Amino acid sequence: MSDTVTSVDGALRERARAVVPGGMYGHMDAGRFPLAFPQFYARAEGCRTWDVDGRGYLDYLCAFGPMVLGYQNPIVEQAAARQRSDGDCMSGPSARFVELAELFVDTVPAADWVKFAKNGTDATTTCLTIARAATGRRTVLAAAGTYHGAAPWCTPRTAGVIPEDRAHLRYFTYNDLDSVQRAVDEADGDVAAVIVTPFRHEIRAAQQAVDPDFARGLRALCTRIGAVLILDDVRAGMRLHVGGSWEPYGVRPDLSAWSKAIANGYPLAAITGVDALRDAAREVYITGSFWYGSVAMAAAIATIGEIRRIDAPAQIGRVGELLRAGLVEQAQRHGVGINHSGPPQMPLLTFAADPDFAIADAWTTECLRGGALFHPWHNGFLSTAHTESDIARTLEITDRAFEAVSRR
Amino acid sequence: MSDTVTSVDGALRERARAVVPGGMYGHMDAGRFPLAFPQFYARAEGCRTWDVDGRGYLDYLCAFGPMVLGYQNPIVEQAAARQRSDGDCMSGPSARFVELAELFVDTVPAADWVKFAKNGTDATTTCLTIARAATGRRTVLAAAGTYHGAAPWCTPRTAGVIPEDRAHLRYFTYNDLDSVQRAVDEADGDVAAVIVTPFRHEIRAAQQAVDPDFARGLRALCTRIGAVLILDDVRAGMRLHVGGSWEPYGVRPDLSAWSKAIANGYPLAAITGVDALRDAAREVYITGSFWYGSVAMAAAIATIGEIRRIDAPAQIGRVGELLRAGLVEQAQRHGVGINHSGPPQMPLLTFAADPDFAIADAWTTECLRGGALFHPWHNGFLSTAHTESDIARTLEITDRAFEAVSRR
Repeated sequence: MSDTVTSVDGALRERARAVVPGGMYGHMDAGRFPLAFPQFYARAEGCRTWDVDGRGYLDYLCAFGPMVLGYQNPIVEQAAARQRSDGDCMSGPSARFVELAELFVDTVPAADWVKFAKNGTDATTTCLTIARAATGRRTVLAAAGTYHGAAPWCTPRTAGVIPEDRAHLRYFTYNDLDSVQRAVDEADGDVAAVIVTPFRHEIRAAQQAVDPDFARGLRALCTRIGAVLILDDVRAGMRLHVGGSWEPYGVRPDLSAWSKAIANGYPLAAITGVDALRDAAREVYITGSFWYGSVAMAAAIATIGEIRRIDAPAQIGRVGELLRAGLVEQAQRHGVGINHSGPPQMPLLTFAADPDFAIADAWTTECLRGGALFHPWHNGFLSTAHTESDIARTLEITDRAFEAVSRR
Repeated sequence: MSDTVTSVDGALRERARAVVPGGMYGHMDAGRFPLAFPQFYARAEGCRTWDVDGRGYLDYLCAFGPMVLGYQNPIVEQAAARQRSDGDCMSGPSARFVELAELFVDTVPAADWVKFAKNGTDATTTCLTIARAATGRRTVLAAAGTYHGAAPWCTPRTAGVIPEDRAHLRYFTYNDLDSVQRAVDEADGDVAAVIVTPFRHEIRAAQQAVDPDFARGLRALCTRIGAVLILDDVRAGMRLHVGGSWEPYGVRPDLSAWSKAIANGYPLAAITGVDALRDAAREVYITGSFWYGSVAMAAAIATIGEIRRIDAPAQIGRVGELLRAGLVEQAQRHGVGINHSGPPQMPLLTFAADPDFAIADAWTTECLRGGALFHPWHNGFLSTAHTESDIARTLEITDRAFEAVSRR
C-alpha cells in the first residue's frame, strides 16, 4: 500500500512530515482519505494519472475540478506555450487581459465586467466586499455548512478564526426559502448579499440539486430587498453551463465567483458582475503579485473557447450519464444500496447505511486497486478527456468493487 | 503617448474600460502613473521589457518584484518545462512539494516547516491566523501605513471593508519601539502577533532601513510577552538575503510570509515558521485549487537553488550600488535634490520639494522616453539579469532625464 515506507509515496510522506506541519494540508491531504490513496503523483495526461509508485488511474478527481478538458490538453498547452515565449508575469498585463475580459463578458450573460484573481477564495471574498461597498450594509447570508473558501470568514476549520471574522454572517438552509426570509428578518434590513452555490456540493453528504423555485425565489428576494445575489460558481462554473450554472433556470446573479475550470489547471480566478455594481467593483482594491500573469490568461482564452466550441458541459454530461447508469445498474445487481447524486459532470456515490463512510472507503479502495481514482466523500469531476471506452473500462473496475463490498 | 487611441496601448485601454471596472485595477493600474506609462506589455526577456507599441525598456520594476533572476531565465524555465511535461495541477502534489519544502527549511534558518499558497496576501493572512490559533489571543500589531496585502483586514483602500475586519488590529510607528510598547499596553495582554516588513517600503514615501535595535527590540518584546513575531518578507524576501531579510541583524521571526521572488515569476507564496508553531500551523485550514501545482514548485526549486549558487542578493546589490552611485552623482551635477532610498536591490528615487510627485513624474517620463522603466513612487527592483553595461546604458538615459528636470 502507498503509505508504507517501502513505497516511494510512503518515503515522501515521511520526508514531508519533517518539513510540513502534519505532512500535508488542505483538500489534497491524503491523510484524510483511505490508506490506499496516493499522496504524491508523478504524471497526468488526458483522463489518466500516475502516482509516484508508477500505478496508473482513470482519474475522476480531475485535480479536484480544474481539469475540464483533460490534463495536457494540446490546445490549451499550445496557447500557454505561445504566450510563455513572449512573457508571463511582466511589469503589467498583456493584451490577453483585455481579450479574456471580453471573452468572459461575451460568454456569461450575467457578466457586464470582470476582474481576475488567483484563488477561488479571492473571488468569493471580493464578491462579499463589493456587495458591502455597493450597499453600505454588512450582513451576508450563506447556506449553513457550505464551503466558500478557506479565508477566516469561511474556512471550514476555525482554528485561529476570531468571532469578528464572521460577525455579520447569518446562515440559512439550502433550498429552504423560508429560512432565508427568517435570516433576512433577523438582519433587520441590513443584508448586503446572499451567497450561494449552484447546487449543494458539501463534502461527506449526498449532493442536492437546486430547486429552481429556490433559485428564482432568491433572485426575487434579493431584488426586492436591494441585496446582491452572489453565485459561488468556483467549483461548478463552466463544467455545467459555460454561461453560469444557473443559466438553465433563467436565474442571473449580480456577482459570480469563478475559478477551478476556467483555465484548465492554470491558476486563475475571476469575479464577474452586473453594471449596477461596476462602480463598487472599481472602488474595492484587490491585487496580487501574479494576478496579471499572461500565461494563465492565454490558457483561459483557449479553455473557454474550446468549452464553447465543443459544448464541453454537454459532452461531459453524456459520458457522465453513461457512468451513472452503469454504476446504478451494478449497485442494483450486487444488491448494494447507493445514492449517485449531483450532476453527471460532478457526481458523488454514497452508500446506504454508511454513516462513517466505511463502505465508501472500501469501494474507493477497491477502485484504486483496479486503477480508477474516486474520492470517498468529495464529489468527483469528469472532463472531455473521459471517453466512452474510458467509462467502459472504469465500469469493469467498479463492478469488481461493488462485488467486493457486497461480500462485506 | 501611450494613452491616445491611436496607439495600440490606447486602443486596448479603451476596450478594457468596457469590460473591466475602471479599465484596470490594483498595483498594475497604469492610470495611477504618469500618462507616458504603458499599460500593456508584449514581451519580456532578461532585464528588458517591450510594450504593445514596440517600445523597449530597461525594466527596473521586474514585474513589481517577482523577476529576481531576469525574465525567461533559462535555468528556471527549463525546470518548469521539465515538470510541465509530467504534470502541473494534478489530483495531488508531486515530489517537488517535498523537495521544495526541504529546500526552504535548509535555506531559511528561521524555518522549521513550510506551507505553500498562491498570493502574498494568503501568506500574511495565514500568519495572523496561525498566531491567533497558537496564542488564543486576538490582537495583532502592525506598523501604521504598511502594506501587508489586499484582503479586508489590510487592503489600503477600505471600500467594502467593515469595522469588524480590523477590530483587533492596533498600529505602531515603524522603528519606534516605544510606540510598539504603547500598543502592547493598550492591548492589555492580548497580543497574538506583531507583523512587520523588513524595512519601510511604503509607496509615495522615501524608503527607510530598519534600525537593527528596533528589530532586536521587537524580537525581545515578542518573546517576553509570548507574542508571535511575523516578518512580512513578501516584497523583499530572497532579494536581500536568501535566508530572510533580517538574517544580517541576527533577528529571526517566528513566522515569515514569502511570495514575489521565490519562483522567479511563477505564482507561489509560502509561510515558514518555527517548531513551536507547528501544531497551530497544522490546525489552521488553508487551501486553494492551484496551491499544489508542481510547475511553480519546480520553478521555485530552480530559483532558490540559483539564488544560493550565485549569491543573487550580493550580485544584485553590486549592480544596484553602481546605479545608485551614478544617480547620486548625476543629481548633484545637475543640481537636482534627490533622496535615493532603500537597499540597492529595491531602490526608490524621490525628489526634494516634490510633495505631489510632479518632478518624479517628469523624471520617470523622461526615462521612459529614453528607454528605462522606473516607477515614480513605488520602489523599483533589480535582478541578476541587470549587468554593468545595462546600468551604464541606463545612466545615459537618466542623465538626460536629470538634465530635463533641472531645466524646470
